[in-house]
Amino acid sequence: MITGLPGIGYVAKLSVDYLIKELNAELFGELYSKSFPSYVLIKKDGTVELLKNEFYYYKNEKMNNDLIIFTGNVQAISPEGQYEVSNEVLNMAEKYKVKKLFALAAYITHKTIKKVNVYGAATEQKLLEELKKYEISSMDAGSITGTNGLLFGLAKLRNIQSICLLSETPGYRTPSGQVLADVKSAQALLKVLSKIVNIKIDMEPLEKEVKLSEEFNRKIEELKRQEVEKMQKDITPPPKDIYA
Amino acid sequence: MITGLPGIGYVAKLSVDYLIKELNAELFGELYSKSFPSYVLIKKDGTVELLKNEFYYYKNEKMNNDLIIFTGNVQAISPEGQYEVSNEVLNMAEKYKVKKLFALAAYITHKTIKKVNVYGAATEQKLLEELKKYEISSMDAGSITGTNGLLFGLAKLRNIQSICLLSETPGYRTPSGQVLADVKSAQALLKVLSKIVNIKIDMEPLEKEVKLSEEFNRKIEELKRQEVEKMQKDITPPPKDIYA
Amino acid sequence: MITGLPGIGYVAKLSVDYLIKELNAELFGELYSKSFPSYVLIKKDGTVELLKNEFYYYKNEKMNNDLIIFTGNVQAISPEGQYEVSNEVLNMAEKYKVKKLFALAAYITHKTIKKVNVYGAATEQKLLEELKKYEISSMDAGSITGTNGLLFGLAKLRNIQSICLLSETPGYRTPSGQVLADVKSAQALLKVLSKIVNIKIDMEPLEKEVKLSEEFNRKIEELKRQEVEKMQKDITPPPKDIYA
Amino acid sequence: MITGLPGIGYVAKLSVDYLIKELNAELFGELYSKSFPSYVLIKKDGTVELLKNEFYYYKNEKMNNDLIIFTGNVQAISPEGQYEVSNEVLNMAEKYKVKKLFALAAYITHKTIKKVNVYGAATEQKLLEELKKYEISSMDAGSITGTNGLLFGLAKLRNIQSICLLSETPGYRTPSGQVLADVKSAQALLKVLSKIVNIKIDMEPLEKEVKLSEEFNRKIEELKRQEVEKMQKDITPPPKDIYA
Repeated sequence: MITGLPGIGYVAKLSVDYLIKELNAELFGELYSKSFPSYVLIKKDGTVELLKNEFYYYKNEKMNNDLIIFTGNVQAISPEGQYEVSNEVLNMAEKYKVKKLFALAAYITHKTIKKVNVYGAATEQKLLEELKKYEISSMDAGSITGTNGLLFGLAKLRNIQSICLLSETPGYRTPSGQVLADVKSAQALLKVLSKIVNIKIDMEPLEKEVKLSEEFNRKIEELKRQEVEKMQKDITPPPKDIYA
Repeated sequence: MITGLPGIGYVAKLSVDYLIKELNAELFGELYSKSFPSYVLIKKDGTVELLKNEFYYYKNEKMNNDLIIFTGNVQAISPEGQYEVSNEVLNMAEKYKVKKLFALAAYITHKTIKKVNVYGAATEQKLLEELKKYEISSMDAGSITGTNGLLFGLAKLRNIQSICLLSETPGYRTPSGQVLADVKSAQALLKVLSKIVNIKIDMEPLEKEVKLSEEFNRKIEELKRQEVEKMQKDITPPPKDIYA
Repeated sequence: MITGLPGIGYVAKLSVDYLIKELNAELFGELYSKSFPSYVLIKKDGTVELLKNEFYYYKNEKMNNDLIIFTGNVQAISPEGQYEVSNEVLNMAEKYKVKKLFALAAYITHKTIKKVNVYGAATEQKLLEELKKYEISSMDAGSITGTNGLLFGLAKLRNIQSICLLSETPGYRTPSGQVLADVKSAQALLKVLSKIVNIKIDMEPLEKEVKLSEEFNRKIEELKRQEVEKMQKDITPPPKDIYA
Repeated sequence: MITGLPGIGYVAKLSVDYLIKELNAELFGELYSKSFPSYVLIKKDGTVELLKNEFYYYKNEKMNNDLIIFTGNVQAISPEGQYEVSNEVLNMAEKYKVKKLFALAAYITHKTIKKVNVYGAATEQKLLEELKKYEISSMDAGSITGTNGLLFGLAKLRNIQSICLLSETPGYRTPSGQVLADVKSAQALLKVLSKIVNIKIDMEPLEKEVKLSEEFNRKIEELKRQEVEKMQKDITPPPKDIYA
C-alpha cells in the first residue's frame, strides 16, 4: 500500500496522483468522514466535488506486488479525526492483507535545495538497512504529523511493516504565507519509490506537467479561503448588553 | 426540497422564510442538536425561542411537485455537527422520497452589484443544462461552505439530484465588521427559484418588507454578542502561581 | 427546581449557595462530566475538590412545594457538553416530577446600578403574567447563554414550565479584566425568588456575608489561571525543521 | 501506583522515568488514545516511536508494597481526552487492586529556589497527617491541571486513597518561552517519594544524569514545533471571492 494525502508542499499527494494516472490504477473505494472540513468544491464544469479519501488498485501483471494506493483531496481536521481515518485505512490494509505500507511525506529544510534528497524512517531497523541500497539515509530525529505520519506509525500496531519516505522541500512561501506545490520534490520521491516497489513509471509527462501544480495551487487557495472566512467571523462588534 | 439556513448576508434564510410565509407552508418537524451553540433567544413577548432547525410542508394542489422546505435560526458550530445535521436532513429527504434538492446559498462578490446574478452548481451536468433556460450560468470554481453546501453535496451520495443556487451579495460590512442581511439578493434568488419549481409567489410584499431585514440584523447582533462574550472570557489576569 | 451554576458575576451561584445553606437543603446527587475542564481544586485543608455539579433537596414541611436545587462549581466547557449536562439535569427533573423550573441568571447592564432590577423570561406567556405580581418586568430581546440558559429553554421541550430570573449586574471588571462576584445582585434575586416560591429566607446573614464573595473571587482567579496557563503553552519558539 | 506524565518542567515524568530505570520495572501494558496529538516521533535509529502511555510493574520482594508505575511520552490534548485516559488508568488501578495512588506533579513558584520544597495534597485529611512525618506541608489553595491532577482527584470517586506530591520548580523559560526540564526538582520529589513508599533508590546516577534533561528538552522542542506548525497554517492570504 502506498499512501499520500495533501500535506506540506503537496509532495505526497502529487506523487500519488501521478502514480495513479501512470499506472492507470482503478478506484475501488471511497472514504467519507464527518471529521473532514464542512464544505464542498465546485469543479470546472459546475458539478460538485465532495471532500473524500480514495482507494485505488493496481494489478501488477508482471510481478507479485499488487498495489493499493490511498489518497484524497483532504485530511481530517481534528487529531481525533485523523486517528479515526488512519484506523479505517489500516482496517482496509488488513482486509487486503497488505504486506508493506509506504507512507509518502515531505520534509521542510528551510533552505535552497540543489539536489532533492529523500530520507527514510521505518517500523523496523532491518527495513532501513534495505533502504540504504537506494541511497536513502535514515532520519534520526523529528516528528511526522497528520494522517501521513499516523498511517506510518499505527501500521506498527497492526504488525504491518511500514516505511515513511520523506522528500526534501524548501517550504518557500508566497508573500501571503502560502506554501506552493513542489513538483520537483514529488519527482524525486517517485524516482526512489518506483525503484523500491520495482515498477516502471514514465517520468517525462511529470516534467512537462509542472503546470499541474497550478491546478493544485488553486485548490490550496480555496482551502485557505475557508480559514480566512472562519477568522472573519471572529471580527465582531463591541458588546452591548450581555446576559448569562 | 428547498433548503436555506442562515449564512452570508442571510440570503438563503431570507428567501426560504419568505417562501414559507407566502405559500403558507406547514411546520411538520423540528430538529435539535447538541452541536448548536449553547444559548437560547428571548422573543419580544418575553418567551423563549430555542435554537432549532425546522421542516415545512407545502402541498401543491395544482401540480405534482409538493415541497419540503428546510430552514432554522442557526447552523451547527463544528464541522462534525454540520455533517450530522446534514445527514439527518437527508434521512428526512429519503423518507419523503424527495426527487430534487435545491440548496440556496450566497456568493460574495466584494464589489458593487447593479443587477444581482444567480449562479448554479449541480450534482449532474444535465441539471446545469436545464438551468441555462433560466439564464443561470454555472459556477466554475470555488467552494460552498457550511450546512448549505453539505446538503447540496451530500445529496449526491444518496442519489438525490441536487442544485445549488448562489445569489450574488456584495458582502458589505458595517464599521464593526458585520455583514448585513441582503434582501435584494434574496429577492433575485426567489425570482429564479419560483420559475424553476414553477410556483407563483407574490413578490410585492417582499419589496415592502425590506424592514424585515432589521429584525434579522438584530438577531445577527445577538449571535455576534455570543462570540464577543466568549472572547472576553479570554481576557485574563497575569498568572501568579501555577501547579501542574 | 431552582438552578444556578457559576456565570456572570457569580450571581446565580451565589444565590443558590445561600439558599442551600439557609434552607439546610440536603445533598442527594452528584453529576460528573468529562466535558468539565480537566483540573482539580485544592481546599484550604489540603484535600481535593473535584469539579462537579450537585443536586440538593429541601422538604417543605409547611407547604406543598418541595425544592430540588441544582448547582456546582463549574460549567461544561463545550456547547456539546453544556447540552449534555442540561439534558441530564432535566432527566432528573422528570424523574422527580418537577412542576416548575426556576433558572437563575445575571444580566449585564454596563452601567452603574442604584436599585437592582430583576427581569423575567418564561416558556409561556401566562407565567410572565404571574411574574408581574412581583414587579418583575419581562425581557423583550437578547439571549441567555450557557447551561443556565439551556436549562431554562430545554425545559420547554420536556413540557416543564420554566421561568428565567435575570438579576442586573454592572459587569465591572478589575484592571486585569476580571468580573467580580456581585453579592448585591444575588441578594435582589433571592428576595424576589423567595416571594415567588413562598419560602422565608433570613436575608441578614447574606448582608454580612459580603466577605463570602472574597472566597468566590479566589476561586474565579484559579479558573482564570487555567486559561492563562493554556495560553502560555502557545508561546512557542520559532520553528526549525518541520516534517509532514 | 505512581503516576507521572509530562507536565510543567517535566518534573513528574523525569521522576517516574528514573524510578522505572533504577527499579528495573517491567513494561506490562500500553495505552493508546485518539485524543493524543496526531503525530509520531522518529528515534535516533530511524525507527518510529508512537505517542503512548505505559504501565510498568515492580515486584517488591522485600516488602508487601508492589508498585505499578504509569507514565508516557504525551498527555491527551482535550479535557475530554484527559478524563477518558484518567478513567482508563483508574480502571487498571481497580483491576490490580491498587491501595494508594501517588500522583507526581510540579508547582511553579516563579522565584529562585534554593532548597526545593515538596508539597502535598490528598483525598483524605489523615493522609496529610502521615505526610507531615516526611516534612511535607500541605497545599492550601490552587488547582492541579491535566491528567496528573485528574488521576489524583478521580481516584477519590473510586475510593482509592490518593496523594499528590508537588515539587517546586522555578518555571524559568528560555528566551523563546520554553520551560526547561528541571532535574533538581525531580530529584527532590524522588527523595521524598522513596521514603514514603519505603524503597531504596540510588540517587547518584541521577545527579550525574543531568544530561538526561537534554534528551528531554529535545523532545519538548519537537512538541512545540507541532504547535508552531499548526499556528503557521493560520497565516493565510487575504480573501478574494467567498461563497456560502
